[in-house]
This record gives sequence, C-alpha cells and structure tokens, in this order.
Amino acid sequence: MAEKITPRAEDFSQWYQDVVIQARLADYSPVKGCMVIRPNGYSIWEQIQKDLDQRIKKTGVRNAYFPLFIPESFLKKEAEHVEGFAPQCAVVTYAGAKELEEKLVIRPTSETIINSMFAKWIQSYRDLPMMVNQWANVVRWEMRTRLFLRTTEFLWQEGHTCHATGEEAEQRVRQMLRVYTEFAEEVLAMPVIAGQKSESEKFAGAFKTYCIEGMMQDGKALQAGTSHHLSTNFAHAFGTLFLDKDGKQKEVHQTSWGVSTRLLGGMIMTHSDDRGLVLPPRLAATHVVIVPIFPQSQGQMQARTQVIEAAQKVLGEIETASSLSNLPYSIGVELDQDETKQAGWKFHEYELIGIPLRIELGPRDLEKGQVVLTRRDLGKKEFVPMVQVGQVVVEALKAMQKDLLEKARAFRDARTFRVDSYSELQKKLDQPGGGFIEASWCQNSKCEEKVKQETKATIRCLPLTSEYEPIAESQSCVICGAKGRAVRVIFARSY
Amino acid sequence: MAEKITPRAEDFSQWYQDVVIQARLADYSPVKGCMVIRPNGYSIWEQIQKDLDQRIKKTGVRNAYFPLFIPESFLKKEAEHVEGFAPQCAVVTYAGAKELEEKLVIRPTSETIINSMFAKWIQSYRDLPMMVNQWANVVRWEMRTRLFLRTTEFLWQEGHTCHATGEEAEQRVRQMLRVYTEFAEEVLAMPVIAGQKSESEKFAGAFKTYCIEGMMQDGKALQAGTSHHLSTNFAHAFGTLFLDKDGKQKEVHQTSWGVSTRLLGGMIMTHSDDRGLVLPPRLAATHVVIVPIFPQSQGQMQARTQVIEAAQKVLGEIETASSLSNLPYSIGVELDQDETKQAGWKFHEYELIGIPLRIELGPRDLEKGQVVLTRRDLGKKEFVPMVQVGQVVVEALKAMQKDLLEKARAFRDARTFRVDSYSELQKKLDQPGGGFIEASWCQNSKCEEKVKQETKATIRCLPLTSEYEPIAESQSCVICGAKGRAVRVIFARSY
Repeated sequence: MAEKITPRAEDFSQWYQDVVIQARLADYSPVKGCMVIRPNGYSIWEQIQKDLDQRIKKTGVRNAYFPLFIPESFLKKEAEHVEGFAPQCAVVTYAGAKELEEKLVIRPTSETIINSMFAKWIQSYRDLPMMVNQWANVVRWEMRTRLFLRTTEFLWQEGHTCHATGEEAEQRVRQMLRVYTEFAEEVLAMPVIAGQKSESEKFAGAFKTYCIEGMMQDGKALQAGTSHHLSTNFAHAFGTLFLDKDGKQKEVHQTSWGVSTRLLGGMIMTHSDDRGLVLPPRLAATHVVIVPIFPQSQGQMQARTQVIEAAQKVLGEIETASSLSNLPYSIGVELDQDETKQAGWKFHEYELIGIPLRIELGPRDLEKGQVVLTRRDLGKKEFVPMVQVGQVVVEALKAMQKDLLEKARAFRDARTFRVDSYSELQKKLDQPGGGFIEASWCQNSKCEEKVKQETKATIRCLPLTSEYEPIAESQSCVICGAKGRAVRVIFARSY
Repeated sequence: MAEKITPRAEDFSQWYQDVVIQARLADYSPVKGCMVIRPNGYSIWEQIQKDLDQRIKKTGVRNAYFPLFIPESFLKKEAEHVEGFAPQCAVVTYAGAKELEEKLVIRPTSETIINSMFAKWIQSYRDLPMMVNQWANVVRWEMRTRLFLRTTEFLWQEGHTCHATGEEAEQRVRQMLRVYTEFAEEVLAMPVIAGQKSESEKFAGAFKTYCIEGMMQDGKALQAGTSHHLSTNFAHAFGTLFLDKDGKQKEVHQTSWGVSTRLLGGMIMTHSDDRGLVLPPRLAATHVVIVPIFPQSQGQMQARTQVIEAAQKVLGEIETASSLSNLPYSIGVELDQDETKQAGWKFHEYELIGIPLRIELGPRDLEKGQVVLTRRDLGKKEFVPMVQVGQVVVEALKAMQKDLLEKARAFRDARTFRVDSYSELQKKLDQPGGGFIEASWCQNSKCEEKVKQETKATIRCLPLTSEYEPIAESQSCVICGAKGRAVRVIFARSY
C-alpha cells in the first residue's frame, strides 16, 4: 500500500502510471495492449456515461446496439476508411470450429455496419433525421499502448446521424462539438480548445473533422473527442438513399462523433498530483469520507462511542444538506469505522484514490464543537463548526469543481505561446514544460509534414471563429513564409 | 407500417418475430447470427440495466471491465470449461496486419481472464471477498439463432466473486438467485421457478448451477438467469490463492452469475399479444401517450386549441401525480400533436410498440370534463373525470404491473402438471400448449438422456426446498421405476 508515487517533475510518464496503478484505477491484462478497468476507475466511467448520456439524449438521439463484427468487404467499401483502419484491425478467421467464408473484423468504429442498417431503414425524407448512439467496446491494434490513453480495446460512445442536407449535418457536427466542450469543462473540469483538424489529421472517410484538445500537466496535447462531418461518403458506398420531397432519390448526409475511456487519462493528467488522484466532485461516487480519530489510550469506550455518534450525526447532516442543495448529484458520504487501520494510513489512502473531501473528528474536536475539513486539491486543514458542516461541504464541493477548471485553464493559458517564425516554434516546443504554440500556417500539407518530421509536433487543430471558420492570418506561414491562405493553427506534441 | 402480426394461435414463432421486427425492437444484421438492437428495444435493456445494476451494487459488488480477448491457452486451463465452450468460440488469428503468435478467443464468458487478474490481486484473507460485475458483450457461435433468445453476440452482465470458504460462496450463489428471482418478478413481471440444474445441464466448469426458469405463452421454458457455484475449479487452474488466518495458502471459492438480453425475449413471450408488445410499466421509458382528437371539420381553430390546452393540462397533472407518488420510476408522458397522422393510425402504432397507457381527448370529452383511458394489456376504454386523471394514471400503472405478473403466474400454474408415469409424461408434453411437467427422477443421467432423445424435453431444474435442497420424492423414477434417490424435477421443452 505504501508504494511511492514518482513525482511529476522527475518522470511525468512514470508518475501517470504510478497514479493509475496505485489508485487501482486500471491494471495491465495478460492480453497485449488490453487493460482491465478496476472498480475505482470504472466508477468514474459510469459517472461519465450517466452525465454524457443525458446530454446526448437531450439532443434527440436514442441509444441502440450494433454488431461487434464487420464483414471485411464492408470495411473496403469506402476507400479512405479502409486505408486508415486496415492496419489496425483484429480479424476473426475461425469460428464455431470452422474457417469462416468471409473474415470478420472486430469493429474499430462502426460507420460501415451501421450504414448497412441505415440503408435498410431509411426510405423517405420522413425517416430523417435518423440519429443513434451506442456505448460499446472497439478494437484498434496499437503498437505502443498506455493505460486509458491508448489501448487495443477501449470503451466509447459513437453517435451516428443521417440528414437530408449537408447544412443540417454540419449543424449536428457543431452541436456535438459544443456538447463535448461543455461536458469536458463542466464535468471533467478540463478546459479544451474546440477546433478543426487539418486534412491530414481528419478521420479516415470524413469530409471534415472537429475536435476538442486539452493540455496535460506536461504541456502535451490530448485529443479528447471528435465530431466528424462525413458528407455523403459512406451513404454513397452503402447506397443509403432517401426519397426527397421533390421526388428524387438522394444520398443522406451523415455525421459521427465519439469520446472514449481516454477521457479518464486526460482527466487524471489534468488534475492529479504527486500524492495521487485528484477527482472533480462531479466524477466522484464518494465525495466525502469521515475519519473518526479514536482516543489513543485503551479502554475509553465512552469517548470512542461519542466520536462515532458525532461522526454519524455529521454524516446525516451532509446528506440533508445534499438533498436541499442544487448540486447536480447526491453527495456520497462514507464513515470509515475500521479500527484495524491507523488514521494516517487512511489519510494517505483517501488522498491516493482521490476522495474530494476528508473530514476528521476526534475527542478534542468534539469538545470544541468542530470538525476538520480537508479539500483533496488544496490539502489544507480547515476547522468547521459542527453546526455548519452540511452547508460548508456543499460549498466546498462547488468551489472545488470550479477551482479545478480555473486552475487548469490558467495553467494552459500560461503555456500557450504565439510564434512568428519557424526557429521560434522549434525553440518553444523544446523548452521545458512544452505547451501549445499558436502560429500561422499556409494550409499546405508539406509544411505540416516538415514540422512533424523535424519537431514531432503536429497541428492539433485550427481554432475557429464563432462562425466555425478557421481564423485567417495576415502573417505569412511560419514554415515556408507563403502568404495568402494562411490560417491560425495550434502546434503541440501530443498523446 | 400496417403489416399484419401473425396471430399466436396460428404460428407462435412467427408471431414472436413479427412483434420484434414490427415494434422495431431489433433487426437482423448482415452478420450471420448477430442482431441489431434498435432504440425501442435498447431502451428496455437500459431500464433492465438501471434497475438490476442497483440491486447488484446493493449486495456489495462493484462494476469493472475486463478484456474482450482471452488467450487460447487460458481457456484450456479448466478441462470441462474448454470442452463446453471450444465448439462455440470465435477466434482472432490475425491482427495489426500480422498473424498472432497466440490465438485470441472472443470471450464466451470471462471466468478465465478474470481469474488471471484475481490471482494477481488476491494475496490474503483480508482481500476477500472480492466481488466484481461487468456489463459486456459476449460471443458464442450458434447454429440456429433467434432475435434476443439466441444470438451469436449478446449483451449481459456477469458477476464474479471470490470467497474464503465454500459456505460463503454457496451463500453468495443463493443470494444472486434471489436477486434474479425478485428482479424477474418485480420488474419483468415474469414469474420464475428457481431451481438447480442437473449435472448434465450445469455450466461447463461449475460445481453446481442454480437457475430461474420462466414459462412462455406457448408452454415452453426459458432459462432466464443462472448462478454458478464454481468451487475451487478455476482457482485451482489459475492459482488464485490466499493466505488464510491460519497461515496456510488456500484456493479461493468462487461464484459467477449472469443474465442477458435474452430477458427481453422472455418478457416479450410472457406478456405480448396479437396486437404487439405489452410492456410492464417498470420497463417503459414512456408510460403514457396522450392523443388529442381534433374536430373533424376544418377551420375549427378554437376547438383545436382547446383540445391541445386540455391535453397539456392533463400532461402536467400526470407529472405532478408522478412526483407525489411512491412509484419506483418517474412517469414518462408524451403528447402526440402530429396532425399529419390519423388517431386510428396512432392507436395502432402505440399498441404495437407497447406504450402502457393511452389517453384520448376530443371536443366531446372536453364538454364532459373527461378523458378516455386505455390500458394496453386490457384494451378496454375507461372514462376518467379530468380532475382525477393524475391519480388514476398512477393507480393504473401499479395495477398493470401487478396484473401482468398475476396473469402470467396463473397461466403458468394452469399449465403445470404432475405425472407419475413415463407414458403420462409423454402425453402431457405432446398436448397442445405444452407446459411444465413435474415428475420424480432417480438422478441417473441415462434416464434424463432417454427423455431428451425421445421427447426433446429436458430437465429444466430441480425445484428446491427453503433450505435449497432438491425435493425428495417417495414416488419412484417415472422413467426407470427406480426408488430411493428420487427427487422432483421439471421437464419441459425449451428455448
């Protein structure tokens, strides 16, 4: 239990792994590249699912479930799509003790299998928009994997919609980008930049890809969600047609959009510290743990009983305050009565697994009519009169959710730099702590590729105007110096 | 939309398929044996998950997620297990554009992969009990498939627990059997018989299997859930050991238990009728649909407005009554204002997809201060004073939930027969409408096999005493006439 977490400053990558393993969020499995999500980690995924699922449903999308298997021929119907995914596919060749006639690919994403159903279900404009989402596992064979961030199998939601026009599809793509942005900031307390991917970074088969990008504490970028405008690319390949009001058969315009268990990795790398997990209250199942401090000398049964009774009263008052509050969740409170473990051991354990608030309560606190409250992110003890504990807990949880976002935003803003030359770009990328580098780019993929080859940084996104247009730059391209088509981009090294 | 549902009396199997397809609960996919669960069906699965997940968590189990892939060598570690599952496995031989060194089986169930993790996580008696559950997809290659009832891929929950003693494991197995029984009856309104499987019918690798069995409207049995006592079989194969209080290394005693999307099939075949789906209120997302009846003649804008306003008021009153009620769910109400569709078309549609209550409301009802309420299962119109509509709806939903269970129980009891000879057993099995046949059996698998070969009926279970023991029979075995070890069993043809 008392393994040490490598400090972030010493080795960020080892720190991340230490937090994930020691807080029992996930573990390596015997299957190469696949992880096990342990109860402490899965509970966070359940909170993510619950909240995001409501946001998705509010936009009129319903959940469904499509097969894990995709016939190999389906994947090949859209040329760019198969080119992008074929190298990463896991393939079933043998089933039911027989060689299969047609190989089955484990879904790396479901545009193809879902289009085969859309083509069957959609007849007329009256069937549009058709909008479904599924929560599912997908498999992409990866060479280098990291818990949550890049695993061969991962969990995600993938939404798929069909529309009568390209304009409607574009509206939906933008709407989901907003849903993801709000969700990341309000729930994960992770500030993100919403932008557009460059041609070379967009989804295989998409017309246009939007994304949200977060900055981790090591200054690297993490793509936290994507929203794709597929245009009629898949509809054309699968014959997903509808009879329009004008009596003509037309291809539907589609979108797809998703976030995955990768969000857990992003959340951890945004907030956690050298003592372990720091969890935004909206992702916690248990928000408060009450640790009674028992009298040191034996035989003081009465004092012991008084401490337990006071702790139970505190628990009740927090639950009452929770039900009267306008918090978007019920406060989960636990009272740790285990006398076989020392209070110090418990403090360490609850810090490690990221319980947002800790309340201590001993005989001397009782005398003073107070409890000791410690916020996980601040680590500073605060004395709270027992009569105020319910209200103070509610306020502390609200403040912690807000502060985590603000702190992360301030961190990101302080590590975002504008550069006007290639040498400056290289210098900023190589300085300790990394960061996001804003620069002007001519939209030529050769310049993009040159930066990637020489610095290992990529264009994370083209930030957008309020009209969802790339931001035109009067400056010339920082790589080639060309003028005219230049737009603003963010370069960064990334996960 | 106006396709006809084959009547149950004409062809039960075709009726079932018609209901599933026409109510858009599921559809066939292009992948052999795999289905697509459509939003109307998936919404029911979501209600099942929500309710059952809470019941499972209340028993102290936490959710986790384990890999989809199982190394082939793992499956082979437990001899009976591999023998049972190998013929049904789908196998990945090729991934990331390379032949795999070790083939990966798509999980047909996860005892083996989970034991590899248990063996790592469990050290001492202090780590016990260890109890996890996962909601996941599994794959079992099937020759003959039917939507929901038997599909190559299906969704389920599988719980896995480790205990210090066999007694504790047995208690857990029985506890989960009770959870499933209560869930089936309280939520699905599906009466079940809880019993023990015979040796030949138990789970491959189990020491003992308990199950719940429901009776469908064609008199066939459906296994709706299983709870396995695995003893130390998997722990032995995987070295899942713990250091006990007495300082000795011991193998843990394990259980596993699951229910699947098959429950949807069972629920449909228990309650639905020739007009479509009949859905117990606790599984509905929308419980009430309000259909305003507009004045027939054109131009009566005022009457039209009055009907809509009254309908909105009714909707509000139902929502208020819902929040004041002790129902275990919030009543979902929809107001169908679509004027492009006839009321008759709407009635047919809402009956087909199983909305529990329909409220009609036209200008003449308005005059009389009433609405017309129709319960989906009864199909009889009832006039309800508008001032009482909230309370009447709450009561109707409660009554419907209760009545569906009672009706199904009465149906099952009426089709359960006791026989005392083999000829009587054969006769009862062959009479129209089938049913459950109670008989005395000597516990010899040869007698069991003879019945299976000659009648296609199997022993569904050994019903249990309150002590979870098979019920001893003084009658001799109906097959061979042997006396002494005879116990009561239920024979039936099954899904």
